[in-house]
Amino acid sequence: MSTSMRKDAAKVPEPTLRRLPWYLSNIKLMKERGERYVSSTQISKEINVDSSQIAKDLSYVNISGRTRVGYDIDALIRGLEDFLGFTNLHKAFLFGVGSLGGALLRDSGLRHFGLEIVAGFDVNPNLVGRDLNGIPIFHSDEFEAKMLEYKVNIGVLTVPISIAQEITDKMVAGGIKAVWNFTPFRIRVPETIVVQNTSLYAHLAVMFNRLNFNELK
Amino acid sequence: MSTSMRKDAAKVPEPTLRRLPWYLSNIKLMKERGERYVSSTQISKEINVDSSQIAKDLSYVNISGRTRVGYDIDALIRGLEDFLGFTNLHKAFLFGVGSLGGALLRDSGLRHFGLEIVAGFDVNPNLVGRDLNGIPIFHSDEFEAKMLEYKVNIGVLTVPISIAQEITDKMVAGGIKAVWNFTPFRIRVPETIVVQNTSLYAHLAVMFNRLNFNELK
Repeated sequence: MSTSMRKDAAKVPEPTLRRLPWYLSNIKLMKERGERYVSSTQISKEINVDSSQIAKDLSYVNISGRTRVGYDIDALIRGLEDFLGFTNLHKAFLFGVGSLGGALLRDSGLRHFGLEIVAGFDVNPNLVGRDLNGIPIFHSDEFEAKMLEYKVNIGVLTVPISIAQEITDKMVAGGIKAVWNFTPFRIRVPETIVVQNTSLYAHLAVMFNRLNFNELK
Repeated sequence: MSTSMRKDAAKVPEPTLRRLPWYLSNIKLMKERGERYVSSTQISKEINVDSSQIAKDLSYVNISGRTRVGYDIDALIRGLEDFLGFTNLHKAFLFGVGSLGGALLRDSGLRHFGLEIVAGFDVNPNLVGRDLNGIPIFHSDEFEAKMLEYKVNIGVLTVPISIAQEITDKMVAGGIKAVWNFTPFRIRVPETIVVQNTSLYAHLAVMFNRLNFNELK
């Protein structure tokens, strides 16, 4: 294992990891506008983040800028995409092909950011055995068998909250290493398991409250 | 306007607003299990948040618990759902009926949390004039006219990053008061406009990095 791989895998602060995709999207736009080099000062002007913060965030990515000239824009885009894991396809299983789960199966855009959902699991007899957007849906009981068949370490959780913990436990027992939790339920997992919570409902709650606050001001 | 409405609209800290839906989902499960009263200590055991933090968070909601007995579970569920804005339907327009936009139009589950997407906008001639999951798709040029027709103040942004700012400006000029931004682009808006960023790609980046880190440990 090379030293550079180890460096890539350093525990990058979460705020940095959340900002890097902003930079990436802005840098892509600058490239479309014809720029060949880009500096942290330029990025800073576009997105209202301090340029020293940007330089610090980019220092985690193995790319060095040239004084006065800045970063080569192609190398920076490639470096960021690699670093963020968007250039590798990470295979995932999705659990719970309901309204949101079905929507995520249909969102092929996730592939461009490195996530390939290769199968869905549900217990609904109207879904099991069918496929959605070319992705097969299996019965939940087949999960262990399918883990042997596919090379998967990510589970997307879109089940009802009443079984969120039970399905999580089953995933972890079956060898899933990271859970992308879309339920508003706070799942418990062993320390070695990665969890990302994406609660659309929590974001809605914040938005509604702020909207209500502004209206009454 | 009543005093209690004003209190509801107090600027609740964002972390509180993000935790309240966790409590709600856990309390609903306790109700399914047959509980009639629930205390912050009980909630705390379920979700690993300090009980004094829970009591403090719940103090923003206009519901009072009884000493030793706790909160009436039905009143607490109703109170939380009201407070979080999940019982009112907030109408929204969606901009950009691509892969993710289309998926969100199909996700009827958002309605249970107070969001009703009433129309989509796009420029793709294969989409304009059709409907998806019963929701009409109009040409982006029709936005201003449709603002007069529908009572909408929320815009869901799922366009390509290259037009994210342009469409945001158009939304704001047309009277949209809150933007739910699903693009990885950091949009700029006037101070009075509410923005919630839900970048699925940023969450993926964090998950991939943590997974990679754990594998190399």
